[in-house]
Amino acid sequence: MTTTPGPDEIVSDLVRAARGLPVRRTPVWFMRQAGRSLPEYRALREGVEMLTACRTPELVTEITLQPVRRHGVDGAILFSDIVVPLHAVGVEVDIRAGVGPVMARPFRSRADLARIPALTAEMIPDIAASVADITAELGPVPLIGFAGAPFTLASYLVEGGPSKNHERTKALMHGDPGLWHDLCARLAEISGAFLEVQVAAGASAVQLFDSWAGFLSRRDYREFVEPHSARVLHRLARTGVPRIHFGVGTGELLADMAAAGADVIGVDYRTDLPSAVSRTQGQYPVQGNLDPALLFAPWDVIADQVRRILDEGAAAPGHIFNLGHGVLPQTDPDVLTKVVELVHEKGSSAPQM
Amino acid sequence: MTTTPGPDEIVSDLVRAARGLPVRRTPVWFMRQAGRSLPEYRALREGVEMLTACRTPELVTEITLQPVRRHGVDGAILFSDIVVPLHAVGVEVDIRAGVGPVMARPFRSRADLARIPALTAEMIPDIAASVADITAELGPVPLIGFAGAPFTLASYLVEGGPSKNHERTKALMHGDPGLWHDLCARLAEISGAFLEVQVAAGASAVQLFDSWAGFLSRRDYREFVEPHSARVLHRLARTGVPRIHFGVGTGELLADMAAAGADVIGVDYRTDLPSAVSRTQGQYPVQGNLDPALLFAPWDVIADQVRRILDEGAAAPGHIFNLGHGVLPQTDPDVLTKVVELVHEKGSSAPQM
Repeated sequence: MTTTPGPDEIVSDLVRAARGLPVRRTPVWFMRQAGRSLPEYRALREGVEMLTACRTPELVTEITLQPVRRHGVDGAILFSDIVVPLHAVGVEVDIRAGVGPVMARPFRSRADLARIPALTAEMIPDIAASVADITAELGPVPLIGFAGAPFTLASYLVEGGPSKNHERTKALMHGDPGLWHDLCARLAEISGAFLEVQVAAGASAVQLFDSWAGFLSRRDYREFVEPHSARVLHRLARTGVPRIHFGVGTGELLADMAAAGADVIGVDYRTDLPSAVSRTQGQYPVQGNLDPALLFAPWDVIADQVRRILDEGAAAPGHIFNLGHGVLPQTDPDVLTKVVELVHEKGSSAPQM
Repeated sequence: MTTTPGPDEIVSDLVRAARGLPVRRTPVWFMRQAGRSLPEYRALREGVEMLTACRTPELVTEITLQPVRRHGVDGAILFSDIVVPLHAVGVEVDIRAGVGPVMARPFRSRADLARIPALTAEMIPDIAASVADITAELGPVPLIGFAGAPFTLASYLVEGGPSKNHERTKALMHGDPGLWHDLCARLAEISGAFLEVQVAAGASAVQLFDSWAGFLSRRDYREFVEPHSARVLHRLARTGVPRIHFGVGTGELLADMAAAGADVIGVDYRTDLPSAVSRTQGQYPVQGNLDPALLFAPWDVIADQVRRILDEGAAAPGHIFNLGHGVLPQTDPDVLTKVVELVHEKGSSAPQM
């Protein structure tokens, strides 16, 4: 375990922004920057299953580094998948192209808890090796660790795969809250251990990704979900790295997601940054939030939006430029590179170090 | 054209609640109450294409009435589909099971406007006939007319079918705003005419359904979408019937959707009713907002949620009980009936007439 370094010891703008410290220029990275928008990624993945790619250090390292080399972003994000830690503890899961993760045996009853043991570092030597290799190559550029939040993992387990309505998951949380909380406590242990291994191996920040939280009412989020995400985030507090907390369509939940123990609030494109700042009492740096679909518009339109978001972010207690959701597969990677250049150019008017 | 009747002339609780008038008991209906959750619907639809069903008055009438007979709801909703008015003006569209509407030729350029002529009453005698038959059978129970909002229609046309990210639609609105506004103005004419025919034939209220509006930032909604929905709603103002405006995941947009000319704001389950009331300055009756996925939970849980929503609705300027999204196909219809009974029993403590 490390302790939080002093302000003068933090060199990367990404970590500085996440701590609310002055930056040289606004840092930028993109959710799903490592992935299908890059031809070099598609070439590497040809004939390789997703889970194989996620568990092979040479591939994880190369795929994680590709967008850093190409775009000059200020952070790498570990190439992984939400279900990797479940796979690591022995849950039978397959990631099907065009579908997503599919469970061989969905979670149905208390007996199924036995199939989800705790995650130990010994189960994921490949992840530690990947992170060590990546951070050695990255030098001063920070690596952001990645894990799915307990609710999103639980939804995959209970529904048996991606779900539009999460009805089985919600029926379980309301119908058998004891079992629900036991399941999520187990998943919080797994998420926490997964992130801890990444930080121990060299990650400089973490992002807890709650993909499906935006399908919850605030009431349900607070009662059934937030305590478990809080457990993950509080465990990570001991590592001293900043914790980013993000979910799609979570405008109603931002205050709760912040209170769960985040250092940075990830903001979906549906909520403007000033609203996000105000809903979190101006206490949290924000990350976001260009609509990824707008990357298909003409450059002048994109540039206007980037400038607006930089202006809005400058009024936040810290700003990491990002999209408001992951890069879409058909995105022209050259546009992403141009966005990075514009953020760096324009974002240099941020408060000086 | 009719004019708005005086308070004493309005007999149905649904229309009274929509007008903010005192009710005998809280009215209740369910989005997608006419549909796949009912075995009698599935039997009628066997071997019948969706668009055929929507254009055959005997089927539209029977399907629209089924949930009223079975559940005793306080309103019928015209059985239709968002793309019916496009089909009526000659757009080549097919509704594929498990997919949704698919366009033979997606909208790509100004030349495509010629393929979307104005909708006239002569093109939809079947809709007028259906509404006349339904309202004759319904007696005092009001029929709610139904149409998709211009943005949602535009998204289907531009994407060529259902879309997760609406990137072509957003690229068009930002990249060629002139064409975008011309397309939406045309679609607003079509939606408006479609609803006007329904009201002229006997509908007592209308719901403008903007399925995909929740995928827009507030900024985009205000600039590119709201003016066109406003055109539809203002046109309907002349008919004197209340106008319900609803979209999924539109918590950020409620004030704008209200200002567009709604009488009632439909509220998704993600936003609680008190927040919806506060975001619309306490000026609008609300409709909603039980999470349809919770209908899969045990009855005690459902009953608690129904009671809470009734309590919250009692503090609104008017409340129509509904789900926060459509009935899911696997829903047990007996549960829906029990919800209606509970709303009627508990909702009788609403202000007396």
